[in-house]
Amino acid sequence: MVAVDVGGTKIRAGSVIDGVLDHLREVPTPAAAGARAILDSIAEVVRGVISDTDVSTVGGPTPAWKVGIGSAGVIDPESGTVVSATDSLSGWAGTALTSEITERLGVETRAVNDVHAHALGEALSGAACGTRSSLLVAAGTGIGGGFITDNRLLTGRQAAAGHIGHVPVAAAQGLPCPCGGQGHLEAIASGPAVLSAYRRAIGERSPGGPQVTTTRELAEVARSGDPSAKRTFEQAGRALGTALGGVANVLSPEVIVIGGGLSGAGELWWIPLREAFAAELIPAVRGLPLRPAQLGQDAALIGAASLWSTGRGSGRDTISSDTYGTTMTTGEEPQ
Amino acid sequence: MVAVDVGGTKIRAGSVIDGVLDHLREVPTPAAAGARAILDSIAEVVRGVISDTDVSTVGGPTPAWKVGIGSAGVIDPESGTVVSATDSLSGWAGTALTSEITERLGVETRAVNDVHAHALGEALSGAACGTRSSLLVAAGTGIGGGFITDNRLLTGRQAAAGHIGHVPVAAAQGLPCPCGGQGHLEAIASGPAVLSAYRRAIGERSPGGPQVTTTRELAEVARSGDPSAKRTFEQAGRALGTALGGVANVLSPEVIVIGGGLSGAGELWWIPLREAFAAELIPAVRGLPLRPAQLGQDAALIGAASLWSTGRGSGRDTISSDTYGTTMTTGEEPQ
Repeated sequence: MVAVDVGGTKIRAGSVIDGVLDHLREVPTPAAAGARAILDSIAEVVRGVISDTDVSTVGGPTPAWKVGIGSAGVIDPESGTVVSATDSLSGWAGTALTSEITERLGVETRAVNDVHAHALGEALSGAACGTRSSLLVAAGTGIGGGFITDNRLLTGRQAAAGHIGHVPVAAAQGLPCPCGGQGHLEAIASGPAVLSAYRRAIGERSPGGPQVTTTRELAEVARSGDPSAKRTFEQAGRALGTALGGVANVLSPEVIVIGGGLSGAGELWWIPLREAFAAELIPAVRGLPLRPAQLGQDAALIGAASLWSTGRGSGRDTISSDTYGTTMTTGEEPQ
Repeated sequence: MVAVDVGGTKIRAGSVIDGVLDHLREVPTPAAAGARAILDSIAEVVRGVISDTDVSTVGGPTPAWKVGIGSAGVIDPESGTVVSATDSLSGWAGTALTSEITERLGVETRAVNDVHAHALGEALSGAACGTRSSLLVAAGTGIGGGFITDNRLLTGRQAAAGHIGHVPVAAAQGLPCPCGGQGHLEAIASGPAVLSAYRRAIGERSPGGPQVTTTRELAEVARSGDPSAKRTFEQAGRALGTALGGVANVLSPEVIVIGGGLSGAGELWWIPLREAFAAELIPAVRGLPLRPAQLGQDAALIGAASLWSTGRGSGRDTISSDTYGTTMTTGEEPQ
């Protein structure tokens, strides 16, 4: 099958045959050009992957191609439509994603939200492999999440589950949130929020201070000893840890996996994150591990592919999407 | 079967035959006398229910009795033991609840946490009936919760899921929480927290003010116009609403059901609760209903009974405990 990850800046795809991800292709997302252009780009990159795979499997049988997509936006896995999306993908909301791709390519297609796909991927063969319940948190441009329980992805009413970034936190009180509300985690702990907080601090202190445009650059500034940069990462890590501590007390997963761009910021972010998280845990939840994600940008592809995998009859445990009931084998024996 | 609800002040039990709860009995919980006394009281009240039922079904076949228990404390439904408990039940932590009851009565026994049982009951035949996912929140002496998704109760690692009372909220910053932490919802929004906040306010204003010992009394004081009493309920309702808004953004259930003693406080608590809740919801979750619980103290009994019910082959949807895979019919057709 072909797995696709549709993000705000790029579309990435690859073949997944016998659990192996291969023949990766990547094109820029025509994010400003509207839904039709994005759909055409998805179809084009999928055709490329199929073509590459067919050439490389000379002599073997042609696979019965299916497409699994993890896409930015709230995606209803049942209807395959984009329920809502931010302005970063112009006209994406309301797109009949799976049926449009099926129409273009003549192959069956399934789709979920990209962070949900990420969570499935890490649960299947990443940092949460072997657990029955896990929470994946992706901290980057936004802060999203995917919760797996009893080896099923929680999609929620209107496919909206997992919006970890919209948990209220005291440290964000009064700050506007991209959702239109205020005081949410994302307003203080996302990548853009970290950059804004740093610019506010720098602007107050020294208008001629270092110019940074990415959290990666800012992390370097922080590591070089800049106290404002350090403080913004600490503040962001601490806010995320506090919010996740509360979520952990409610969900009690076996593990929380942290991915996304900010997870590469290093110990200046991870240490306050871990400290604030541990401080919130009730005795019954104490010891719950926070682990870095393992699969990087492949996680969403592996998760998207899992929408079509079936492991029935294998005598092992399963990961099921709430909607499809498709199953994938994990390393655990059934109880 | 016999359903039992073990609380900090009383043990309640009844028969559940063909889905009908009957032959209710109630005894005080010997909370200070240790686990053996509590177990003996449970066994005694179950024997009483069985005896009442056998007498009343003269001529009919004797049911094959089983016992389902919802109990205070963190209860591991798989092993049937009390993982942890507060000091309100002396020596309860570590008790092998189900095997001790089986030993005393010679009948098979299953157990879950009482709030988890409450959630199952409301989902099965109360305010969340007909939904596939719901969150039950019990706001009283503590603030607990039970989350049902895809018609399964989320028990979580170490059976600890549902501790809604231990979500951090800005309004509780600095206040000590019964869990040993601070700044959690329970520190401002539980019944005891409401009473404490009122006493602090009254103490500052007028040491000779009205003496109240229950939230029910305090609600009457508030309804009679006392501004401090009104403010404490508003503050508690608002804090609960804020925390639940964040939880709703993460879980996106179809409905949130509110029970527990505080839910009887009236509009002075419900209005700020609803307002604060709605203010936190992201667009994708907006419109999620908050409903009052419907089954009162019978909910936990109906939920405890559901641990033994099986609806397999009924061609309808199911409620399953994560651990047992027992199923109960609901009003929904499978998808």
